Amino acid sequence: MQIKDLLSTGKNGRLMFSGIDTVELAGEYGTPLYVMDEEAIRQNMREYKRALEECYGKSSMVCYASKAFACKEIYRIAMDEGIGADVVSAGELLTAVSVDFPADKIVFHGNNKSDDELLLALNCGVGLIAVDNIEEIRTLDKLAKRLDKKAKISLRIKPGVTAHTHEFIRTGAIDSKFGFALETGEAMEAVLLAANCESLALTGFNCHIGSQIFDAEPFAAAAEVMLEFIAKVQKQTGAPIESLNLGGGFAIRYTDGDREVNYREYSLKIAKITKQKCEELGIPVPFMMIEPGRSIVGNAGITLYKVGAVKNIPGHRKYVLIDGGFTDNPRYSLYGAKYDIIAADKAAADMNETITLAGKCCESGDLIGENMPAPSLEPGGIVAVLATGAYNYSMASNYNRLPKPAVVMLKGGKSRIVVKRETLNDLLRNDI
Amino acid sequence: MQIKDLLSTGKNGRLMFSGIDTVELAGEYGTPLYVMDEEAIRQNMREYKRALEECYGKSSMVCYASKAFACKEIYRIAMDEGIGADVVSAGELLTAVSVDFPADKIVFHGNNKSDDELLLALNCGVGLIAVDNIEEIRTLDKLAKRLDKKAKISLRIKPGVTAHTHEFIRTGAIDSKFGFALETGEAMEAVLLAANCESLALTGFNCHIGSQIFDAEPFAAAAEVMLEFIAKVQKQTGAPIESLNLGGGFAIRYTDGDREVNYREYSLKIAKITKQKCEELGIPVPFMMIEPGRSIVGNAGITLYKVGAVKNIPGHRKYVLIDGGFTDNPRYSLYGAKYDIIAADKAAADMNETITLAGKCCESGDLIGENMPAPSLEPGGIVAVLATGAYNYSMASNYNRLPKPAVVMLKGGKSRIVVKRETLNDLLRNDI
Repeated sequence: MQIKDLLSTGKNGRLMFSGIDTVELAGEYGTPLYVMDEEAIRQNMREYKRALEECYGKSSMVCYASKAFACKEIYRIAMDEGIGADVVSAGELLTAVSVDFPADKIVFHGNNKSDDELLLALNCGVGLIAVDNIEEIRTLDKLAKRLDKKAKISLRIKPGVTAHTHEFIRTGAIDSKFGFALETGEAMEAVLLAANCESLALTGFNCHIGSQIFDAEPFAAAAEVMLEFIAKVQKQTGAPIESLNLGGGFAIRYTDGDREVNYREYSLKIAKITKQKCEELGIPVPFMMIEPGRSIVGNAGITLYKVGAVKNIPGHRKYVLIDGGFTDNPRYSLYGAKYDIIAADKAAADMNETITLAGKCCESGDLIGENMPAPSLEPGGIVAVLATGAYNYSMASNYNRLPKPAVVMLKGGKSRIVVKRETLNDLLRNDI
Repeated sequence: MQIKDLLSTGKNGRLMFSGIDTVELAGEYGTPLYVMDEEAIRQNMREYKRALEECYGKSSMVCYASKAFACKEIYRIAMDEGIGADVVSAGELLTAVSVDFPADKIVFHGNNKSDDELLLALNCGVGLIAVDNIEEIRTLDKLAKRLDKKAKISLRIKPGVTAHTHEFIRTGAIDSKFGFALETGEAMEAVLLAANCESLALTGFNCHIGSQIFDAEPFAAAAEVMLEFIAKVQKQTGAPIESLNLGGGFAIRYTDGDREVNYREYSLKIAKITKQKCEELGIPVPFMMIEPGRSIVGNAGITLYKVGAVKNIPGHRKYVLIDGGFTDNPRYSLYGAKYDIIAADKAAADMNETITLAGKCCESGDLIGENMPAPSLEPGGIVAVLATGAYNYSMASNYNRLPKPAVVMLKGGKSRIVVKRETLNDLLRNDI
């Protein structure tokens, strides 16, 4: 589901999101405001689930990568849609279990889990712990033994596949903080170590080759490498490797300049290669997992801001100053990420200006974007930044002691708060 | 005060910060942990206060730029040292007044203050509102009228001086989201507009030319430009311009590769030029203000982390994984900022390795630094990242639902918590 499918222009000329007047939303809940569409999230989850079932039948699981957007409600929705969840911290795990998300459908990731996090994962009975390094194999074995449990684990492998994307969001190649390298023999060492740990049950492998990847090819290439490794491991050790988790990284269309991605076709391509490879290797097709996050929530959300002032600097550029900034959306300052914008109070207005959308923080780098096509924007107007459902709320800070915005969910023509706006009291709560 | 002046090696070989064993601090309060030295903060405040008084007598004020590190305790300390504060939001202002910080010593900055923030500033009676743009002049006049108050304001001017520093932390040149440009006549227009506003009292100008500036020359150049403007304004309008605020941006020594900065000499150089220029222009020396933030707290703090795992990738690099990351220190991912590190459990160990210090977040860019000289670090060891007192706690996020670390203040051989560690409950508090 693309963000533009959810947008329309109302009779009053205003931007409608999922059929609801965005200017009214800004008025009712205040700005800045994250707004998300529940049906879009559900459809995205279903699209992946169906695609995986079409490819592999019931021997598959979509796990929502909750780091993209984590709060109680998103786990309720994922649970209701019957998909799993990928969590990366005690905070995410506790949020999930606080709404009775089934622990056996949770995969616990992380390159440096604390002992407390591992104990929590064991005590909650998470379905799979994705172990990242030798140290963790040893620690987890010890902790599981102490609790008299057998921990079901997968090992994170670096398949050596690099997806073409922004350098800062590249993973999977050998030079990464995540996982075990294949080339160096480290991955096989880890397998042998894990296989010898009494309190660990090595049942699968996982990888993650990057973020915002538009092509299926790198995934297919990673799948081939991983399947070859599975075959090798089964031959050498006899370990019953049941599952292969190809991770996330599926791109979304942030701006009109981006291609549209069809996740079903994407999945079918990967599945075709996967099955061919398994046949070639003479191994059964494993239980297949993927972990989309951005592509489930990214295009289901927008952020509404109020314009404070407009600064036209002749010969330079036009700054439009909004009441949020890199505190609620740090992706431009971190990655140079691009967004489209729409004037909520005149959605069909010509995009005949080029602006810099700047936040209210005392920091020059506090920008949401530069050289953005925009309509004429006036002080007091509401502007919508599109496709902010992923890595905005979850990455928000309180720099300048700004409270985090509320998150409002839309469904069936109605809106409801799913995360309350932080209060100034929240900011002072832990100060002595 | 330099960070290395506060560090020593204990008899047990451990890193002592302000005479206190850092391994014990990590044990007592947990990791990650921000640790700050109160005496260093006070000395830095005093050094600036004395330098300004040496230059300008009592006709001067140092304002602590609280965006660098804001919590109740830092305002108590600043208040106790008799300096003012620069705040940029309702959150910072309320934190200050919650500990009875004198409002008349507060300057309220910001390029896009909300109406609520302006009303709060007026109601609290802040000493000066630093107005950023034409829209704000109009709004503030209206709001002050409504409250039957006269708002004392300064105008933020872009002096057109660019300090040589990282592009993302450059301000002051004409192409900036902050302030009024001189070259375009916008600054004089703003003066005329403000002078005609019944409920505004224009009493000064402020500027800010950048961050992490090692030389006094750009400040002196900015002062000259600003003084020329003051003379011009006084001549053209007769407005009683009393104060000049040169802002902040004074560099600190982050690593051994950085120069040491003597803020007294720095201030004397600026003062010499300022006085010469005033004499030349035939105007009295204004009430002089500066707003150091980083240089007050930056070198007064360290962060303690626990090492989880160490990954040596032959032919590539060695990753040392710690239990925090860009959630508690985003400065490397935002600016490529550099830090020195010390092994807390063997402070005198040879720095014969080169490592990448990586956090625990599920993100490749979650690094504290690359190519850092380091001793051999082992899982379970404590590592101190130096000079993290500024823009670390204040910029922290909850990405991956990680709680923000506690801040511990040291004084007279004792430690106390000044900001409590966030709990998982804090993270869930606003979720519906």
